[in-house]
Amino acid sequence: MNIIIINGPNLNLLGKREPEIYGHQSFEDYLEVLKQQYPNVNISYYQSNIEGELINIIQETGFISDGIVLNAGAYTHTSVAIADAIRSIKCPVIEVHISNTHKREEFRHKSYLTAACLGTILGFGMDSYRLAVDALVHLKEEADNDDSKE
Amino acid sequence: MNIIIINGPNLNLLGKREPEIYGHQSFEDYLEVLKQQYPNVNISYYQSNIEGELINIIQETGFISDGIVLNAGAYTHTSVAIADAIRSIKCPVIEVHISNTHKREEFRHKSYLTAACLGTILGFGMDSYRLAVDALVHLKEEADNDDSKE
Amino acid sequence: MNIIIINGPNLNLLGKREPEIYGHQSFEDYLEVLKQQYPNVNISYYQSNIEGELINIIQETGFISDGIVLNAGAYTHTSVAIADAIRSIKCPVIEVHISNTHKREEFRHKSYLTAACLGTILGFGMDSYRLAVDALVHLKEEADNDDSKE
Amino acid sequence: MNIIIINGPNLNLLGKREPEIYGHQSFEDYLEVLKQQYPNVNISYYQSNIEGELINIIQETGFISDGIVLNAGAYTHTSVAIADAIRSIKCPVIEVHISNTHKREEFRHKSYLTAACLGTILGFGMDSYRLAVDALVHLKEEADNDDSKE
Amino acid sequence: MNIIIINGPNLNLLGKREPEIYGHQSFEDYLEVLKQQYPNVNISYYQSNIEGELINIIQETGFISDGIVLNAGAYTHTSVAIADAIRSIKCPVIEVHISNTHKREEFRHKSYLTAACLGTILGFGMDSYRLAVDALVHLKEEADNDDSKE
Amino acid sequence: MNIIIINGPNLNLLGKREPEIYGHQSFEDYLEVLKQQYPNVNISYYQSNIEGELINIIQETGFISDGIVLNAGAYTHTSVAIADAIRSIKCPVIEVHISNTHKREEFRHKSYLTAACLGTILGFGMDSYRLAVDALVHLKEEADNDDSKE
Amino acid sequence: MNIIIINGPNLNLLGKREPEIYGHQSFEDYLEVLKQQYPNVNISYYQSNIEGELINIIQETGFISDGIVLNAGAYTHTSVAIADAIRSIKCPVIEVHISNTHKREEFRHKSYLTAACLGTILGFGMDSYRLAVDALVHLKEEADNDDSKE
Amino acid sequence: MNIIIINGPNLNLLGKREPEIYGHQSFEDYLEVLKQQYPNVNISYYQSNIEGELINIIQETGFISDGIVLNAGAYTHTSVAIADAIRSIKCPVIEVHISNTHKREEFRHKSYLTAACLGTILGFGMDSYRLAVDALVHLKEEADNDDSKE
Amino acid sequence: MNIIIINGPNLNLLGKREPEIYGHQSFEDYLEVLKQQYPNVNISYYQSNIEGELINIIQETGFISDGIVLNAGAYTHTSVAIADAIRSIKCPVIEVHISNTHKREEFRHKSYLTAACLGTILGFGMDSYRLAVDALVHLKEEADNDDSKE
Amino acid sequence: MNIIIINGPNLNLLGKREPEIYGHQSFEDYLEVLKQQYPNVNISYYQSNIEGELINIIQETGFISDGIVLNAGAYTHTSVAIADAIRSIKCPVIEVHISNTHKREEFRHKSYLTAACLGTILGFGMDSYRLAVDALVHLKEEADNDDSKE
Amino acid sequence: MNIIIINGPNLNLLGKREPEIYGHQSFEDYLEVLKQQYPNVNISYYQSNIEGELINIIQETGFISDGIVLNAGAYTHTSVAIADAIRSIKCPVIEVHISNTHKREEFRHKSYLTAACLGTILGFGMDSYRLAVDALVHLKEEADNDDSKE
Amino acid sequence: MNIIIINGPNLNLLGKREPEIYGHQSFEDYLEVLKQQYPNVNISYYQSNIEGELINIIQETGFISDGIVLNAGAYTHTSVAIADAIRSIKCPVIEVHISNTHKREEFRHKSYLTAACLGTILGFGMDSYRLAVDALVHLKEEADNDDSKE
Repeated sequence: MNIIIINGPNLNLLGKREPEIYGHQSFEDYLEVLKQQYPNVNISYYQSNIEGELINIIQETGFISDGIVLNAGAYTHTSVAIADAIRSIKCPVIEVHISNTHKREEFRHKSYLTAACLGTILGFGMDSYRLAVDALVHLKEEADNDDSKE
Repeated sequence: MNIIIINGPNLNLLGKREPEIYGHQSFEDYLEVLKQQYPNVNISYYQSNIEGELINIIQETGFISDGIVLNAGAYTHTSVAIADAIRSIKCPVIEVHISNTHKREEFRHKSYLTAACLGTILGFGMDSYRLAVDALVHLKEEADNDDSKE
Repeated sequence: MNIIIINGPNLNLLGKREPEIYGHQSFEDYLEVLKQQYPNVNISYYQSNIEGELINIIQETGFISDGIVLNAGAYTHTSVAIADAIRSIKCPVIEVHISNTHKREEFRHKSYLTAACLGTILGFGMDSYRLAVDALVHLKEEADNDDSKE
Repeated sequence: MNIIIINGPNLNLLGKREPEIYGHQSFEDYLEVLKQQYPNVNISYYQSNIEGELINIIQETGFISDGIVLNAGAYTHTSVAIADAIRSIKCPVIEVHISNTHKREEFRHKSYLTAACLGTILGFGMDSYRLAVDALVHLKEEADNDDSKE
Repeated sequence: MNIIIINGPNLNLLGKREPEIYGHQSFEDYLEVLKQQYPNVNISYYQSNIEGELINIIQETGFISDGIVLNAGAYTHTSVAIADAIRSIKCPVIEVHISNTHKREEFRHKSYLTAACLGTILGFGMDSYRLAVDALVHLKEEADNDDSKE
Repeated sequence: MNIIIINGPNLNLLGKREPEIYGHQSFEDYLEVLKQQYPNVNISYYQSNIEGELINIIQETGFISDGIVLNAGAYTHTSVAIADAIRSIKCPVIEVHISNTHKREEFRHKSYLTAACLGTILGFGMDSYRLAVDALVHLKEEADNDDSKE
Repeated sequence: MNIIIINGPNLNLLGKREPEIYGHQSFEDYLEVLKQQYPNVNISYYQSNIEGELINIIQETGFISDGIVLNAGAYTHTSVAIADAIRSIKCPVIEVHISNTHKREEFRHKSYLTAACLGTILGFGMDSYRLAVDALVHLKEEADNDDSKE
Repeated sequence: MNIIIINGPNLNLLGKREPEIYGHQSFEDYLEVLKQQYPNVNISYYQSNIEGELINIIQETGFISDGIVLNAGAYTHTSVAIADAIRSIKCPVIEVHISNTHKREEFRHKSYLTAACLGTILGFGMDSYRLAVDALVHLKEEADNDDSKE
Repeated sequence: MNIIIINGPNLNLLGKREPEIYGHQSFEDYLEVLKQQYPNVNISYYQSNIEGELINIIQETGFISDGIVLNAGAYTHTSVAIADAIRSIKCPVIEVHISNTHKREEFRHKSYLTAACLGTILGFGMDSYRLAVDALVHLKEEADNDDSKE
Repeated sequence: MNIIIINGPNLNLLGKREPEIYGHQSFEDYLEVLKQQYPNVNISYYQSNIEGELINIIQETGFISDGIVLNAGAYTHTSVAIADAIRSIKCPVIEVHISNTHKREEFRHKSYLTAACLGTILGFGMDSYRLAVDALVHLKEEADNDDSKE
Repeated sequence: MNIIIINGPNLNLLGKREPEIYGHQSFEDYLEVLKQQYPNVNISYYQSNIEGELINIIQETGFISDGIVLNAGAYTHTSVAIADAIRSIKCPVIEVHISNTHKREEFRHKSYLTAACLGTILGFGMDSYRLAVDALVHLKEEADNDDSKE
Repeated sequence: MNIIIINGPNLNLLGKREPEIYGHQSFEDYLEVLKQQYPNVNISYYQSNIEGELINIIQETGFISDGIVLNAGAYTHTSVAIADAIRSIKCPVIEVHISNTHKREEFRHKSYLTAACLGTILGFGMDSYRLAVDALVHLKEEADNDDSKE
């Protein structure tokens, strides 16, 4: 099973930036822990600060992955184009956020992505990513069950 | 570990009401499956159509549980009083929704509860509840780890 | 043919409250007159000031009645939960109002219920209820005609 | 007793236009049925696509009829001038709509006419017209009763 | 000097309609008085309830009159098309209103016409028309003075 | 003289909930102090988390008390139904709030109740209740003076 | 007959400030011309840039004049306090503007004063003042006629 | 192939009105040029300043033409009724505008018609009409190709 | 104990202006009564129609008084500058209003001052001032008690 | 004559993405057909998902092309920067859309680009591009005619 | 070279008021330092809490100074009248703010003055004033250079 | 001391684009002049049209520079992501604009960046950059003074 985690702008600074909101762990460190928890899942990772590159990677992996875990950072609140990319592909996309965006500024309450994604998980710190992976694994199992039943 | 799942208005009709949105399974059936997945967790359940009774149960269990999984149904979009109840208690509350509320009517995009809860999980069908329980279990483990370190 | 009339908050005060808007007749008195006009229809009646109890009664009668006549009073303007209850049931619901709500405060112009109901009748005083009953009777006759044609 | 039914723009196409919303019956056919149901009421009929002509007919009949049944079609949502005409005349006006306008586009939820009319009936298909006629008949009877009492 | 007074919808009912707002005098009666006050001015008059006919008359007289006094009634608040007609012609147009529209409903506070007209006079009852005629006469005198100076 | 103090949702937690906003004293403790300050006033007390039960108590006491002191908590910002109940009864109602609601979230700045109440007192901590009782006593004295003068 | 003309902020600069909008004539020069046109009217004049001084003069003259002609300049768009002063006094107040405020910035379209004044005259350059004086004279004549009839 | 071009209010003034926006050519002159460019297309023309007459012509030609080219002028921004007429008929309607309406006043940015039309062409001066005719011709060719393939 | 009562624009007209809203008593008369009720409190008084003078007096007394009772009249709804003055000083400020501002025009529902003041009392007629004085006295007693306890 | 067609985000997926909206043809296939229709026009093509790269290509070609046909996809609704780039260059830009964006989500109704472009063509499927090329050719011919006349 | 610094309401309290926002230095102290930095510039100073007095000083100095540095305090957000005064005068005006107003309440984000001023400098503490003086000096040098070149 | 100036989209066209707004000087030419004015400051420069590349450079230089001067061009009005980048770094960022953005379109009045930056300087043409550099130099001096004092 192939899953890709895609992080948007400024998430490369995790561990450095505003630690009172985002915590002290870098995403690379966290990713190692996560992979160990799902040894049967092939988890790849991509980060970019450029909106269009996020669209590129969504397009490229969206037809060959079993699911995308997407934290689009600040583009969540402004990008119709990423939402369109999500709508254009085959595999399910799960929107995640580390912080509870609704406890922050008003403009972070609006997400263009939620309506294009399968579901949303927000506010659990790094654990938001694990829950998203878990949801994709569960989805796959259910689909496989349905197939094997036929 | 004690967790309570609280369902709000019309969720007693799960399996009967608008199955194209909410699926065909009753919540009671689902709850049995869920309990088997978390044998070490004591999961109790409450449902009411009455806003104030939801506040009552949140107040009563909010000081003695390890976490609340709350699907407040339509009160999500209108109830400042439930949000206040969540803010008044000690244990973490996770907001869940079966459907992706952002794919539905405009007035379902606003949630008074998100900012009062720890986090939100929406759009995964019944699996939203499991993910919320899982998140609470993870939270407990982390807290216990922190304690044992000291 | 079974019809239930459901009245929401403060409508128990009909005849006492703001008579320049709602008139001097109590609903119980009116109900007797109405029943005599439709001797072949079994009309029952329920009133509550509690939003969730209105949901309960809609759920309970919504699968076994031929129609509901609903005056949700002030909850008309604020309750997504009652609208959800209406959408969850089988029988048609008709929204009625005694006064012409558009001649009153701005916040009474919005109804969450209209889009969930079959139709709306407002502004005819107590006669709004009779017209709603009449509409349900007409609907039943048409449905029966369709059946007998087959 | 004299009642006039006034239909606004595009309602001359009833039976041709968007039958999934408005049904397959032309208004002329329906009118014949309606007249038979109220043999003691003199029901006349007028239709125009021109806003100002609707105002003309409302002015002309509004001082000599016992009531007007008005389906102003799309002008409902934009015409202050028709609302003014209604306010200028003596006889009661009832606003009717065939479809439930609140199940359609946002801009059809606003009515300039409701606040100027006696009452509104919407969502019952062609039966909306009959209910409006019935309401006017009832109103007349009550007024006559009041007179005879004196 | 040629001036035309153009009245919009429902102003043909002046003296009949809502006399507490518009007074008891018909416009025709008032016009006679007004003409006597300006014996050197040729004042003609037109009224229509039809928006497009008001546009027609504005177009027809707008290139041959010395000024238009326009009370567009309710179209004031909704008609971009009349505003466009005013912008298309040569002679000055003065917007008048009998009542003080800002003391009435919110939707009567907005005028599409003001920005297209030379000026606005409102709230003086029938005298609003006289003041508008007077303003046009004054304007003509000033223009004539300027010409004679050259 | 009979006064009832009615508290809405979550105010049963006073002393436990968010003490930095609401202080450390329970309402029951405070009530004892208050009663001693007004030995000639019969002060009763009611609390409920259920919107409709607040309506019930307002209806029941509103015709037999000399005044109601109402802290409707979060329902202040969302309940048209409670405002309607206040408008339906005979005795004066005073809206009180412990905290200064305008120093908190935007949605707490709007009150549906203020326009239905006699007056509002907010921001004085528990002393808001005493001031409200005092205002009612003053009102009664003035009314008695007026009566005795006649 | 006593009339006072009151000018608000920056109108002391007339003739100096933005002449493409306000013209080249100072108000003092214009006033002389105006007085000659109404030899039987005692016209006094006041100008201040200070909102509260405008309130003072309105209060002082509002009980002893036959009318006030008020150009409140930019305070027109922001001052509830001047509107309150107008409502507090006995004599009629006419709002005038030299320019057509609706051809300028959006924030100049709103007037707090219109609803408090008898009427409004705008867009006629300096002639707006004369028309306002004329309207007051006309009003006085009508009132005197009414008196003499009795 | 039959196409009708329908022009709305004030477009009869083309060549006279605001030539800096609309150019100096009358529509009749332009029409001759256009007809020569499409000798195989039967192009008819209609203009009215009256909203309801535009609805009439749309209804009359909408079932017998191959396409309508509609420049509804200012009614574009206010008429739900014309949009309804477009939705009621069979043939495709193309919305055209001579000027780029988005470079003008805010209220010209909104079009009720776009969502009801097949497509929109705006900003190309008179050439907007030719492009619309061309689009209809292309559409016809494609439909004919599809038919001949079967 | 020193308290100053500060009244804003038009409140010098109390007893003269709109008595159906503000009553027939002048403030000076009322002040004498009030002083007798609090013989141990030194109550001074200031009124101005000028926004900036209100700021001056707030600044001057705000460091040397035990409390300010402020009825800023219409400046309540528009003055950020007075709110800033309140925030700049040491002593508590209580906002009072004679009338229930929420029963009046929409623009009187917004207060810039509430969030800057300690608390608000509105709707009790002149008694609003007494309640505010009483609240300040209570506050002083509590502070003195706290001090004496140490 | 040199024209460049520039496509924005996700338009590289044409033929793959949401074919019920965008059709089954890839843009490359369509481009071949288009080039054959305009053998005398040199049509080049560029696509990018990156907003800033679209700005780069607009800047680079905007001073050396005879026209740009721009379908900015989702950036249409959010990009002030692309609109600025269009305003910065010399050659005309035509905004095109394949689908009728006004039949889709609300946020697609707003275009930042329209006001910066010469004109807009939307809703004709792939033919929108041909019409835009045709409009540019027409523009060139007219300009050449004007030149040759001199 | 003559420059005047004008400070608006509450800025006389600098050093006393909310020092966490505005710092501990009084403006008079700062002014001495500033003057020493620009020995060739004649810097005068004015402060008032009264909006109209700020207008007076702007009018008086605006025709005889080389520039105005204006910190209008809270009037920045509400005063159209000061903006009009700035537009009425000859010399350039620079808007300054000590704090970064966009980090504070929403209502401080709007400035009526910016569009009337030459430029704005905000957020640099007292140094905002020096930068504004420096900008005016630079402007003067450039203008002098332009003159000397001729 | 190290400062970097970062320019956003379309600012590479300075001197070419809309010179009536931005002037005729290219930024490179201006930069040479600026460097000579601050010989002790090491000023580097970066420009990109790509939002994400601006984020990259802010991240890269934000931990090693003494300050950033940022003109984000049109991204100012739409980019939450750049604001987040500013919040993520250590060194102060100053927002500059060449033109007075408040004299231009409405959508240019909003800045997502101001609240994230130390301060803003706008409207001084190229001199805005110099003032920003000067402000950073001043800030450094003050910090150094504070250090040397210890």
